[in-house]
Amino acid sequence: MARWQPNASERLAVAALDLFAERGYENTTVIDIARRAGLTKSTFFRHFQDKREVLFGGDMMTGLVVEAIAAAPANATPLEAVACVLDAAGRDVFTPARREFVARRRAVIAANPELQEREALKGLGLTASMTGALKRRGFPDVTSSVAAELGALASKIAYERWSDTDSGDDFGELARRALGEVQAASAVF
Amino acid sequence: MARWQPNASERLAVAALDLFAERGYENTTVIDIARRAGLTKSTFFRHFQDKREVLFGGDMMTGLVVEAIAAAPANATPLEAVACVLDAAGRDVFTPARREFVARRRAVIAANPELQEREALKGLGLTASMTGALKRRGFPDVTSSVAAELGALASKIAYERWSDTDSGDDFGELARRALGEVQAASAVF
Repeated sequence: MARWQPNASERLAVAALDLFAERGYENTTVIDIARRAGLTKSTFFRHFQDKREVLFGGDMMTGLVVEAIAAAPANATPLEAVACVLDAAGRDVFTPARREFVARRRAVIAANPELQEREALKGLGLTASMTGALKRRGFPDVTSSVAAELGALASKIAYERWSDTDSGDDFGELARRALGEVQAASAVF
Repeated sequence: MARWQPNASERLAVAALDLFAERGYENTTVIDIARRAGLTKSTFFRHFQDKREVLFGGDMMTGLVVEAIAAAPANATPLEAVACVLDAAGRDVFTPARREFVARRRAVIAANPELQEREALKGLGLTASMTGALKRRGFPDVTSSVAAELGALASKIAYERWSDTDSGDDFGELARRALGEVQAASAVF
């Protein structure tokens, strides 16, 4: 497995996860997180607007979604364009080297209502970005919304399967399989 | 139009909306809200866990979702069961007498990130409740998830159309029409 070389924002996220696990989310300050990562408070705030945001990587995912859809082949259907987002997530975000980190992060979020709320709003934002990027390809509004919702659902299913067990499965493959299941289920309606 | 007789929890919500509009969300306390509604702080906390929750009616919507799906006809398809939820929302929640209140509430939430986060998590919870209720009717897991997501999307589309303009349209009718559009879009994939 390739060694993961975290950048400043990922070092802060790892430090935050460690501290949240050791002493609880409420008892951890931004200064604690920066110090643990060997960085300063002002570096923290260059990357993240507040303590919660440290687990959500700023707006990195939004860029990934928008770029993946813009770069999809010209003749891609809405769901094929969405599949390009899932591929990109597997290639750039949910990599084998990050699996353990993602599983720990998921457990911390599940234990904290404030983090769950932030995650929920981030999810809505990503789905809205996906919808907007599909509309810009010329798909009708409702078609774009439905494709984005089905893509978000496939991503959620794959994310849970991928982070639950260390099966060695590739996120992109799990996500394409989940998208196929979602598509098959919606075709019956 | 029937006169709307708010109960304690709705009086608190109306008082909160008035105060948020007058002096801002941050500058309004739970005590202010209770006083404006002619109630006490302890009555507030019997209904709501915190200040944000006053705009989300506790867990009332969850009960509505679960009961509407359980009460759907025995031979209902997943989307027909979801349509029963939309009908119930139009009958019991998004009534003509509440339209102005809902439109004001929507504007206040849109202006406040904390409220947006709470709304996002509430939305996920409702979709999860809908998924669970569909599974209990014996539908497969992914089918239940897809039907719930499409229902949530139809509800969101209808909610925006219904609260945007005072067209006199019935929420349940708008929602069934939106569900039809969503279903037609997903059938193309």
